[in-house]
Amino acid sequence: MVKINDNFLKLPGSYLFSTIGKKVAAFQEANPDKKIIRLGIGDVTQPLVPAIIQSLHKAVDEMGSAETFKGYAPDLGYEFLRTAIADGDYKARGCDINADEIFVSDGAKCDSGNIQEIFGLDNKIAVCDPVYPVYVDSNVMAGRTGTYDAASEKWSDVIYMPCTMKNNFAPELPKETPDLIYLCFPNNPTGSTITKAQLQEWVDYANKTGAVIIYDAAYEAYISEENIPHTIYECEGARTCAIELRSFSKNAGFTGVRLGFTVIPKELKVGDVSLHSLWARRHGTKYNGAPYIIQRAGEAVYSEAGKAQLKEQVAYYMNNAKVIFNGLKEAGYTVSGGVNAPYIWLKTPEQMTSWEFFDFLLEKANVVGTPGAGFGPSGEGYFRLTAFGSFENTVAAIERIKNI
Amino acid sequence: MVKINDNFLKLPGSYLFSTIGKKVAAFQEANPDKKIIRLGIGDVTQPLVPAIIQSLHKAVDEMGSAETFKGYAPDLGYEFLRTAIADGDYKARGCDINADEIFVSDGAKCDSGNIQEIFGLDNKIAVCDPVYPVYVDSNVMAGRTGTYDAASEKWSDVIYMPCTMKNNFAPELPKETPDLIYLCFPNNPTGSTITKAQLQEWVDYANKTGAVIIYDAAYEAYISEENIPHTIYECEGARTCAIELRSFSKNAGFTGVRLGFTVIPKELKVGDVSLHSLWARRHGTKYNGAPYIIQRAGEAVYSEAGKAQLKEQVAYYMNNAKVIFNGLKEAGYTVSGGVNAPYIWLKTPEQMTSWEFFDFLLEKANVVGTPGAGFGPSGEGYFRLTAFGSFENTVAAIERIKNI
Repeated sequence: MVKINDNFLKLPGSYLFSTIGKKVAAFQEANPDKKIIRLGIGDVTQPLVPAIIQSLHKAVDEMGSAETFKGYAPDLGYEFLRTAIADGDYKARGCDINADEIFVSDGAKCDSGNIQEIFGLDNKIAVCDPVYPVYVDSNVMAGRTGTYDAASEKWSDVIYMPCTMKNNFAPELPKETPDLIYLCFPNNPTGSTITKAQLQEWVDYANKTGAVIIYDAAYEAYISEENIPHTIYECEGARTCAIELRSFSKNAGFTGVRLGFTVIPKELKVGDVSLHSLWARRHGTKYNGAPYIIQRAGEAVYSEAGKAQLKEQVAYYMNNAKVIFNGLKEAGYTVSGGVNAPYIWLKTPEQMTSWEFFDFLLEKANVVGTPGAGFGPSGEGYFRLTAFGSFENTVAAIERIKNI
Repeated sequence: MVKINDNFLKLPGSYLFSTIGKKVAAFQEANPDKKIIRLGIGDVTQPLVPAIIQSLHKAVDEMGSAETFKGYAPDLGYEFLRTAIADGDYKARGCDINADEIFVSDGAKCDSGNIQEIFGLDNKIAVCDPVYPVYVDSNVMAGRTGTYDAASEKWSDVIYMPCTMKNNFAPELPKETPDLIYLCFPNNPTGSTITKAQLQEWVDYANKTGAVIIYDAAYEAYISEENIPHTIYECEGARTCAIELRSFSKNAGFTGVRLGFTVIPKELKVGDVSLHSLWARRHGTKYNGAPYIIQRAGEAVYSEAGKAQLKEQVAYYMNNAKVIFNGLKEAGYTVSGGVNAPYIWLKTPEQMTSWEFFDFLLEKANVVGTPGAGFGPSGEGYFRLTAFGSFENTVAAIERIKNI
């Protein structure tokens, strides 16, 4: 008699963005004449840039001819893409990461969810609070998080590191020592960053305690200030304690294209066991590579034309971020983020809970945002807006919010 | 101090096809002048058909324009593809499967490896022996298989169902009752099939014992004989006991394109819990959909032009199968498979082990096949050749084998 994985039943409610999707659909059905503006889910809206479109067409043609057709990709990704990544994202910043330490995947969400598989069930995880829900949820499914307390909205075996206005949204080293530390900077959802010196403290801490840092740098393309690290490998000693997750979703508009990668330096070992070899085994056994044509699109991200065009695209979204940030400030909101990240994080007004503010904004302004509580208990009382809409919609949304 | 998932260390050696890849690379390096013909890994060689190429180009253009750009796909796949699948693969065969019971993914390898996550660790799995290694290996990684005995090459908590010449490569109902039963027909690697009446016995058995069947039908497009089921949902009662895994890799040449799907009927429950809802939660939390352009390519598989073109492509490979089957028979080998599947399964000559025969064939004929032992202990003494090469290479390989 088959038994299910009971850990799934412990998860309260559905995945955050599924819940939002259902709420918005219900509102639209009840109000078919309202034009909803979505600044909720972090989905991009600008089309793929010409250099990428060109590269996709070329790769499609290759797939149509016997001489150039490509079957199964190499387990860990095509050499051309891994080299472009190593050169463009690491060597160019003086970081010692080689092509064979890069694992190409179909996106950072999968990697964020799957990376925990190579670790034992008896590890204690630490997460920023609030944070991208996949880190905790995937550990819940695996059975690593203990029991859920509905009152505090916390799991008994998870170390929460509050990131609120009090600490300028930067986590402090936890009192209890964790085994696995999830860090995400620029942060989703708060849009905050930490300096290289602050990140170095985490690297030193992990090396001292024998913890592994899972560093999600999906939003690094939005960093505009000096002294904010683009990759954890800018820090000394990161090669022995850190795994980095990266995405093409936000820097190149690949949310519907699906491409990402994970970096595991070969020095990163637990005892004699290299985490690189464990992840390689996981990839080899349970994954079959990203599509050839998509990997070619990824390569185009690093071409001269691609880089120039994407710089403009990122600037377009960051201009939206400015519109949101300044508009909300003018309207009297307390806001942060939006300078090194495409996310604006605001304090809900008048003691509203974040889901109350979600409903309020949907009903009064027909604008969709994301309730901070969806990202963890310390997200309560906050709200996220994203800069990924069109300029016109962003301006219109802010006007509506001002006019409530 | 972080702990690794020790289950990974229990896996003997590397993933089968990685091992083969390394052996072949080493041989080629030592013998740079030899022209190796690969009939080992089940990778296709024919280019994508024109209907699919056309559809890919169109979808790429959509991604280049703001009006038609697509971001995140719906969690479970685009409606257009799920409907095409439900109609083309199920309703057309009189099977009651709806679009909302189909979960689009990036391939059957991922689904085969991930599906075990929704089940508890205390389930006992049963597998055909030999079989596609991912079923067992993914359960090893999760910690469901007990200890490995190197002498017998068996895991203590796995029920092996031998499929050899003795039983015409059809598994018998196991003596010990399993909780999860992996079946793959047409079978990889033996190329054998079972009749609808035989499959009905498995469905009845699962319903009686409360087991779930994970039915891998990746090769159904190669079925040429009547009375061989194309899907498990042709059997009565399958909606309450069976999950089906399907792939576009072999029927449409998508090994480098990456698309597949899993079917979970809504009636399939364990107690009150619907497996459909668990898999939906898994998809929502740890997966972000197949690329839009690839889902459009999948849709083209079901168009009139696509179907006609792919019928020819399958016929091309099945002609190769005939060449291999007949050629080996003429050369005095004992062969099976190749009639309803792109795989030919042969008995190794002169008591050679299957890895001995692998080396023998590589050295003497410069032909790469797959050792049966790589698929499980009962695969020892057998060897797999695939029909996925080009016609010219297939003919040349068989000539070389005849001439040893």
